[in-house]
Amino acid sequence: MTAPNEQMSKSRELAWRMIRAALRAVDPAEAVRNSLDLTHNRLTVSAPQGTEQTYHLTDYDRVLVVGGGKAGAPMAAAVASVLGNRLTGGMVLVKHEHTLDDPTATGPIEIIEAGHPLPDEAGLQGARKITDLLQSTTARDLILCLISGGGSALVTAPVMGVSLADLQALTQVLLGCGATINDINTIRKHISQLKGGQLARLAAPAPVVSLILSDVVGDPLDVIASGPTVPDPTTFHDAWSVLARYGVADDIPVSIRDHLSAGLAGQVSDTPKPGDPIFDRVQNVIVGSNRLAAWAAAETAELLGFNPVVLSTFIEGEAREVGQMAAGLAKGVICGEAMHPAGKLISKPACLIFGGETTVTLRGNGRGGRNQEMALAAALALTGWEDILIACLATDGADGPTDAAGAFADGFTVARAARLGLDAADFLARNDAYHFFEPLGDLIITGPTRTNVNDLTLILVGV
Amino acid sequence: MTAPNEQMSKSRELAWRMIRAALRAVDPAEAVRNSLDLTHNRLTVSAPQGTEQTYHLTDYDRVLVVGGGKAGAPMAAAVASVLGNRLTGGMVLVKHEHTLDDPTATGPIEIIEAGHPLPDEAGLQGARKITDLLQSTTARDLILCLISGGGSALVTAPVMGVSLADLQALTQVLLGCGATINDINTIRKHISQLKGGQLARLAAPAPVVSLILSDVVGDPLDVIASGPTVPDPTTFHDAWSVLARYGVADDIPVSIRDHLSAGLAGQVSDTPKPGDPIFDRVQNVIVGSNRLAAWAAAETAELLGFNPVVLSTFIEGEAREVGQMAAGLAKGVICGEAMHPAGKLISKPACLIFGGETTVTLRGNGRGGRNQEMALAAALALTGWEDILIACLATDGADGPTDAAGAFADGFTVARAARLGLDAADFLARNDAYHFFEPLGDLIITGPTRTNVNDLTLILVGV
Repeated sequence: MTAPNEQMSKSRELAWRMIRAALRAVDPAEAVRNSLDLTHNRLTVSAPQGTEQTYHLTDYDRVLVVGGGKAGAPMAAAVASVLGNRLTGGMVLVKHEHTLDDPTATGPIEIIEAGHPLPDEAGLQGARKITDLLQSTTARDLILCLISGGGSALVTAPVMGVSLADLQALTQVLLGCGATINDINTIRKHISQLKGGQLARLAAPAPVVSLILSDVVGDPLDVIASGPTVPDPTTFHDAWSVLARYGVADDIPVSIRDHLSAGLAGQVSDTPKPGDPIFDRVQNVIVGSNRLAAWAAAETAELLGFNPVVLSTFIEGEAREVGQMAAGLAKGVICGEAMHPAGKLISKPACLIFGGETTVTLRGNGRGGRNQEMALAAALALTGWEDILIACLATDGADGPTDAAGAFADGFTVARAARLGLDAADFLARNDAYHFFEPLGDLIITGPTRTNVNDLTLILVGV
Repeated sequence: MTAPNEQMSKSRELAWRMIRAALRAVDPAEAVRNSLDLTHNRLTVSAPQGTEQTYHLTDYDRVLVVGGGKAGAPMAAAVASVLGNRLTGGMVLVKHEHTLDDPTATGPIEIIEAGHPLPDEAGLQGARKITDLLQSTTARDLILCLISGGGSALVTAPVMGVSLADLQALTQVLLGCGATINDINTIRKHISQLKGGQLARLAAPAPVVSLILSDVVGDPLDVIASGPTVPDPTTFHDAWSVLARYGVADDIPVSIRDHLSAGLAGQVSDTPKPGDPIFDRVQNVIVGSNRLAAWAAAETAELLGFNPVVLSTFIEGEAREVGQMAAGLAKGVICGEAMHPAGKLISKPACLIFGGETTVTLRGNGRGGRNQEMALAAALALTGWEDILIACLATDGADGPTDAAGAFADGFTVARAARLGLDAADFLARNDAYHFFEPLGDLIITGPTRTNVNDLTLILVGV
């Protein structure tokens, strides 16, 4: 029989191997490299989902890279390493202090630092360079577009006449009136030169390969970074409907109102719609996503002898409730409920995996993040249960304002803490999960991963 | 292609067939009948889990039935119908107005009405008749004990000297100081003549067959109806610890304090503990439970062509959050995330099933129940998603203070309601799910089922 301590460290070590595999699969450079293959003059771009397309580089005079997002620098470096001297140049916008230590790694691709989450002048200037470059393209240019989380704010290219101050004023009005993020994006797409498929239109007739690292639950292409290479189902009419619904048409900057009026009157073209032939030459590839991370964890789980089940990457809700539900799922597997005569659906040892993004309603002023809070709630619900380990983590390595990605929870967590004088329920009540898990040594610390595909939960059962 | 309306009614009809199968499996009479088989003189008692035991009725002079719970009358009738003239007699306590229309159906078993959730004098007198009967037993008596939800309050047999008023005063003190239900039960078991395994001890040397319909999440035998036929791990010392922890030893009635003192001093025997040989002659059989209902739904789902997965019967938490998570699980299956190269784990059409009991934090003063609230939250999260139907229901047929068991939710619910001028988010905010689903015709109305094995959620995907 295994002593509890050994068993504890064994199960955590197994979980760590799955976590490392998951993070490696969505490492921005790794994800881009996995999607690109250059053999002789053929560049094959393949999606993890299986579709692939080949570009004969002899058909092109230039291979240009554009894009934006927090993971832009390592993605650009990966493109540079694959394409080598076949790469002509380009520019990618990244968040301030998100450049690489080795600036030569991105080859001829210029990395431009810009503001996030609030756009700044550097971002506007960088975006202008991108639009200028794209306006120069011909059918003999191949455009690679690198998109990751934060891309929408970073690549801010408002239409002529709209200033940074106007954009900021618009955001304040929309947030103030309770508009949803979808509502806000509908308007933003209609005062931008790049969002809502317009980057692809600007690049045309050059073909566009968009390599996308998704930080949005469910990977909706038109939402990630405001979908610069994706058809936009929304119209100028929809934008006006949003303003009307919240009664703020008169509160937004006049430059923006004028542009939206011109759009409604048909004086400026709407964003390109689904079915627009320009998208025949666009390939959107999700190179990294929560799903991919979950699948990588599942593959490693299987290699380690677990029966892996990726339940869903669409899990949202209040963190502590999702944590309790994760514990409930684990108990179901422990009790063999998921085994069906027709086939062993979820037999032990099993690894249930789900992903998504939870939220925390602040109740106290402790320190923590949504994943640590989930783990703490799971620990409370698991008290006394054996052979279960739950790991909750943010794939960017920074869960809330902490240096931890998340935490481990098992059936002994609460008792171990009690022996240290820590009352789990009290820490949960104060949103203080970090200070609960830290003395237990049960924080998951990965350091900054430079990627972000939201959160993962691994539920090891029968370990 | 199927028209939306047809498809809607088709998916609901499929769900209804699973619901009916689930409820049938845990119908109190059906559950008891399924566990008993009388062939010649051999009474075989088999658990749905597979274990079984045979009693040769020629070994016994009397076959007596005792017990209590809301489902006592139909359970007693089922025993009477199986045993016929082999049955000697007995008495079962049920909640007021929970007798059968046909009082002869229980044969020689007397049905006694008693107070629930507050014990009353009728319950005390009934319990006294049970203790008197059990004190008369010999090794040539076979005792069948029928236990269902509410049994703890119904079968109230306090130790000598403790009155109904004392019990009520105790409950008030314990609830007032914030004691948990486990704490309260620890004390109650130690001032009772039947709880905590004492019914079995009283019946000894007669063997006891306890047929249990579980209304507690996870089916903990020592908790259901306070475990009258199950070893009690708690002691008089634990009871005093509870009083000390909350500082209420001086606030409880003197009769109770005296008895607990006598117990601590070893002047009265403690409840029988795990390992006590009296339990060698006790067979505890869970004849109906949430798990059994979930499995029955899964079997019917399979017959209807679904890939069924019973995820867990341990799901607890805030109803609206669990509803959102149910929607998230459905989306995962729709997107094929649960399919693994190693084997089709959850392929479509699938039916995910989970059970348990959620809670509702009241925010408004609308009408509804935890299952209807879950369904409403699920509907909001599913908006626009096709081929998914979620059914949430209370197995007793009464979800909260309503005449509905629960409700159906799908990706069109919110839009259909909007056309009737109903704003789903607003109804959820006011806890008014009943008035949201009623005009849609999406309430699940079963009528009172006379059973209770908590709640079930069915998630049909690809339907």
